[in-house]
Amino acid sequence: MAEIHHQIGILGKAEAIYHALTTDEGLSTWWTSETTGAGGVGSVIQFRFNGDGPDFEVTELQPNQLVRWKHSGRMPEDWMGTEITFRLVDKANQVMVRFTHSNWQFPSDFMAHCSTKWAVFLLSLKEAIETGKGRPFPRDIHIDHNE
Amino acid sequence: MAEIHHQIGILGKAEAIYHALTTDEGLSTWWTSETTGAGGVGSVIQFRFNGDGPDFEVTELQPNQLVRWKHSGRMPEDWMGTEITFRLVDKANQVMVRFTHSNWQFPSDFMAHCSTKWAVFLLSLKEAIETGKGRPFPRDIHIDHNE
Repeated sequence: MAEIHHQIGILGKAEAIYHALTTDEGLSTWWTSETTGAGGVGSVIQFRFNGDGPDFEVTELQPNQLVRWKHSGRMPEDWMGTEITFRLVDKANQVMVRFTHSNWQFPSDFMAHCSTKWAVFLLSLKEAIETGKGRPFPRDIHIDHNE
Repeated sequence: MAEIHHQIGILGKAEAIYHALTTDEGLSTWWTSETTGAGGVGSVIQFRFNGDGPDFEVTELQPNQLVRWKHSGRMPEDWMGTEITFRLVDKANQVMVRFTHSNWQFPSDFMAHCSTKWAVFLLSLKEAIETGKGRPFPRDIHIDHNE
């Protein structure tokens, strides 16, 4: 199994970051502006990018500390069975956000693409919290000329 | 063993990207402005960030297609034994750059940090080729507040 790992540090409150990871309003500020369905454990969040995109079921929530999702549905196929976790660790001068997207079948070119793109979106989350203005889809930074 | 994977697409010539990966002048435009020693197979490149940083031995070169380095020396300790490859694949409208940093002992927080930071530097490579102006250290984008 292959995994994507990232870590960023955000100047802000863990509460604000947790809100940005667990509500439609918050998720729309940094990943995709087309986000619906976010809620408690068992809710299924629909993330859309021009109409297509993944669904994730919320499988674990520890307020201001941990968010876990399991891929649900069939889009994109390579993401089936994958899990995403965000762990928040409060430090003296920032909140570290440790991201993992695990259970990939193998490290395909598409996984490599997603790894780079997750970095872009996590930096968008950082900007959203620190400046009030992230870069969610469709205003996201493009990493190639297919996007 | 854990691995970092990324992929970007660059509007430019494979020759120009290969130059940016195999010469002090080119590497200085996107990773760190303190780069010395780049050359053929067997050369050891010193990448420095305020005086510290890794050495990499060039272990394989396929002009305009493949660059492979093996970590050499002792800094940083977590990188000992790791390998980096850049594969260039010419497509109709862009050159895909497939990056791998392999042979990590385990997916530590430091590896997660490096994964995000590699994405930032690969986007710097993209900018350097496409606009003539990358963001090498010390003008790199910061991903946390320890940098």
